[in-house]
Amino acid sequence: MNLEQAIYQRRSVRRYLADPVPEEAVQKLLEYAMAAPSACNKKPWEFYAVTNPELLGKLKHTHMFTNYNSPMVIIVAGNLKKALPGKQKAFWIQDCSAAVENILLGALELGLGTCWCGLHPNDKAADAVREALGAEEHIVPLGLLHIGYPAETPEARTQFDEKKVHYLK
Amino acid sequence: MNLEQAIYQRRSVRRYLADPVPEEAVQKLLEYAMAAPSACNKKPWEFYAVTNPELLGKLKHTHMFTNYNSPMVIIVAGNLKKALPGKQKAFWIQDCSAAVENILLGALELGLGTCWCGLHPNDKAADAVREALGAEEHIVPLGLLHIGYPAETPEARTQFDEKKVHYLK
Repeated sequence: MNLEQAIYQRRSVRRYLADPVPEEAVQKLLEYAMAAPSACNKKPWEFYAVTNPELLGKLKHTHMFTNYNSPMVIIVAGNLKKALPGKQKAFWIQDCSAAVENILLGALELGLGTCWCGLHPNDKAADAVREALGAEEHIVPLGLLHIGYPAETPEARTQFDEKKVHYLK
Repeated sequence: MNLEQAIYQRRSVRRYLADPVPEEAVQKLLEYAMAAPSACNKKPWEFYAVTNPELLGKLKHTHMFTNYNSPMVIIVAGNLKKALPGKQKAFWIQDCSAAVENILLGALELGLGTCWCGLHPNDKAADAVREALGAEEHIVPLGLLHIGYPAETPEARTQFDEKKVHYLK
């Protein structure tokens, strides 16, 4: 798929077909994710690819926005033990967000739809997801990404707004 | 450009040609940026497209990693007055990071190279950039993006690492 098309076609998909996501597609998405930039190349990220039905059910009830019928989710999480020291630690959030965006865009190449549900800094949701995953304290779930073949196709768009642009020539 | 190619080819470019970036290309990059997802569609972002030589010089000395010879920079900043309330406010960081990633990828479509230099949460750098831009206190510069025609082409890659993947089937 053309890059420009993908950028405009990346919209939140909230209804999915039941068809499973092929393992090769999941592998591709994770290769895309880990091609993202990270501050000082620390790569402080972990990826949980969940297809287990019981766990999926549990994860999807972690907050009101996550209960869509996707056949799988990928949780993108920060690994604080791999993050930069001191105040720079918080760069993990930007690194993981760039990885998320790569997954969302890359999914379109594979004919998949996605929806990014935010977890951190909503501690209640992030803690519930960490617990459901059985992950340790230094793992901070950033986002829950629904992934599946879409049963709806939201219109491609940008929300370009010239009021948010400042030219300094 | 093919999406997959772009994802792997997005590497930090640290040497640029002197040729200016056409205004239509800057416009495209900002359309890509504002096609990014944002939590509750708040779009708490502002974009500063800087080509003014004096200001460029000042910005590039805000910290040690920003002094490359690009003919322009785009500063992506959060607008805290547009962000979600309370603890959710920090979602602006994820929104702006997704917008950054769209710019970095979209640049490849236009033959441009980029380098993302992190500002927030490095307060000293973020404050120096805010001041140089003449922006108000509620504007928090997240990243300084060098943009220009590349004088080097780092090899395409992913940093896929299976140790960071956890399958829960």
